[in-house]
Amino acid sequence: MSDGFFRSRWVDAPRGVEELEPAQLAPGFRAGGAHVGLKNGGATDVGLLVCDAERIDSALVLTRNASAAAPIRVCRDVVDQANVRAAVVNSGNANAETGEKGFADALAMSERAADALGLEVAQVAVAETGVIGVPMPMGSVLQGIEAAAENLAPDHADVFAEAITTTDRWRKLVTLTAGGVTLSAQAKGAGMIQPNMATMLCFVQTDAVVKDPAAALRRAVEPSFNRITVDGQMSTNDTVLLQATGASGRPLPEGLLEAVLLQMAIEIVRDGEGTARAGRIDVTGAADRGEAERVARAIANSPLVKTALYGRDPNWGRIAQAAGAALVGADMDEIGADSIDADELGAETPEANIALRLHRGDARAHVYFADLGHEYVTLNAEYTT
Amino acid sequence: MSDGFFRSRWVDAPRGVEELEPAQLAPGFRAGGAHVGLKNGGATDVGLLVCDAERIDSALVLTRNASAAAPIRVCRDVVDQANVRAAVVNSGNANAETGEKGFADALAMSERAADALGLEVAQVAVAETGVIGVPMPMGSVLQGIEAAAENLAPDHADVFAEAITTTDRWRKLVTLTAGGVTLSAQAKGAGMIQPNMATMLCFVQTDAVVKDPAAALRRAVEPSFNRITVDGQMSTNDTVLLQATGASGRPLPEGLLEAVLLQMAIEIVRDGEGTARAGRIDVTGAADRGEAERVARAIANSPLVKTALYGRDPNWGRIAQAAGAALVGADMDEIGADSIDADELGAETPEANIALRLHRGDARAHVYFADLGHEYVTLNAEYTT
Repeated sequence: MSDGFFRSRWVDAPRGVEELEPAQLAPGFRAGGAHVGLKNGGATDVGLLVCDAERIDSALVLTRNASAAAPIRVCRDVVDQANVRAAVVNSGNANAETGEKGFADALAMSERAADALGLEVAQVAVAETGVIGVPMPMGSVLQGIEAAAENLAPDHADVFAEAITTTDRWRKLVTLTAGGVTLSAQAKGAGMIQPNMATMLCFVQTDAVVKDPAAALRRAVEPSFNRITVDGQMSTNDTVLLQATGASGRPLPEGLLEAVLLQMAIEIVRDGEGTARAGRIDVTGAADRGEAERVARAIANSPLVKTALYGRDPNWGRIAQAAGAALVGADMDEIGADSIDADELGAETPEANIALRLHRGDARAHVYFADLGHEYVTLNAEYTT
Repeated sequence: MSDGFFRSRWVDAPRGVEELEPAQLAPGFRAGGAHVGLKNGGATDVGLLVCDAERIDSALVLTRNASAAAPIRVCRDVVDQANVRAAVVNSGNANAETGEKGFADALAMSERAADALGLEVAQVAVAETGVIGVPMPMGSVLQGIEAAAENLAPDHADVFAEAITTTDRWRKLVTLTAGGVTLSAQAKGAGMIQPNMATMLCFVQTDAVVKDPAAALRRAVEPSFNRITVDGQMSTNDTVLLQATGASGRPLPEGLLEAVLLQMAIEIVRDGEGTARAGRIDVTGAADRGEAERVARAIANSPLVKTALYGRDPNWGRIAQAAGAALVGADMDEIGADSIDADELGAETPEANIALRLHRGDARAHVYFADLGHEYVTLNAEYTT
């Protein structure tokens, strides 16, 4: 599988998985898109995803950022998250920090999509990504939604993936079959249409039976999207949507959703803004889970560790310092070289394993993270309004 | 005063302050130094600071990093912090992550200094900065301490300042008189002898009467060194030492210690590793002090805000995003452009004021921070072991 979708050393692909043509959505789903000028160069920037089955099980995971963007608030306040038949998306404008007008605009997108698809507004999720603080050009966006509704097709997963992409260097989409079910997924990562914030979006469609999609999605998001950090910055727009028709009559194979979301999450780290290398920090022997998590994130978000990963410097002292800062006030021995495995910081591998063993208890946690290099600074600083 | 020591727009120098020759220590203090090869190029890398008065009031503030270096542990466990007559310092080796041997080495430095000065070990503080995880070359260090003891002089504050300096671009020392007392101070900031961690050290000497030096130092450190961040990384070695002889019979003028430490703190930010610009984020209207603090630090440590400061991009959306992430889960309106003053992010000023007004209560907090630019990455990544 190493040349296929599951190419990370950190992902175990479930047995018996077969990759299909990634533009082909799972049975029962269609997608479409249009270009309305939110992005330059004619790329698809408005998209629709719809499930033709009358009955669907769905779940949404949304950012908890207190400055959540308008589409997030529409999904929270208006959408029936267990019954999402369709999603309307755009890239190029995040519709964030746009106030009441932004909320009305996101709601209008949902309404127009519902009209075009013969659905209720509560059945249409909205997701947007791109520049923030800029009003949406609603005339062209609403026209784009109608145009997208007219070109819906079962093999337009690639069109939909383009409709959510900002500066991702490569597209993130996959279609898999295993255990008699098909699952397709599209994601976009830490990109920007203009240097603003990174946003991750992910859409998953399947004909499997998923009895409690909210629980299934939570279980799969926790070890994947909730364990990655590019720059420690939670976006205003992060959204994951799972839709399951149940048409196959078969359950999701054990671990399939987890593996797909983990690979997507790692793709997002690897394709982070200016990322050259990714790391995985594994903290063991912590007093409790909260402590393990705090230490792992302190290391993953330390600019000194991130620049060492970038510069291939096996500088274990920076791991010790970041861990010590996270354990501030604790009464412990020094964290010495013998408790740290930082060799791969200095190795050629694009995915570096780093480990820290504490001697405080049995708890552990790991986090996947991006390095910090010149490309990050260039992308985020060398933009002058 | 703008060409003098108090050159930051953020510091109000107390009235009636006069600057003296900065190499001249406050009355009753002498300093000396030696070069033993911890740093290249012949620069002074071992130093001694001693108070000749028999009686002294002193206080130490030490890093709370759980991986605290050996000299910190000696100061915690062996030194009588209220009665510190002398300090022995070195730059070029932090003596951190050096285990039991490191502790013994730091203690041996204190013992040799005590011998040379006719003091008790408990009266000699130790402070070290530089590369971590490397054993100290104790033979030459102990010889250096003896050499430093032989050239002690009241006008060697500059020698002592050099003995604590790593890659600071400019020296940080000042001697002031006000209200009948003299105060001298030397600091070093976010530098590195080899790309490791930033450490701040600061030494303050005065002939003023300071009745409760621990309380006075805490009061002055809280709004100064505890309100700065270069890269959010707490060092293993941070140390501030205040020594007061009381020989003048006069108290410290109101605000003098606070102003000196604040200017020193801002010097450390301005001279941070690869820093081009400094910012001050002021958060008002928070629900409580903890929330104000959390939001201010989230903004100050956001790499997106730091790169915007570097790139002179008045990108208020990044302030909103960082604040929203710090207020995760809160039920609040969007933080819009009208609550953020980010104009100076895009201005030419080397010290940029940024403000965020929340509408959740009356609490406020501010933090001084460094930008994040190519120089930071170069200094911290382009070092290959």
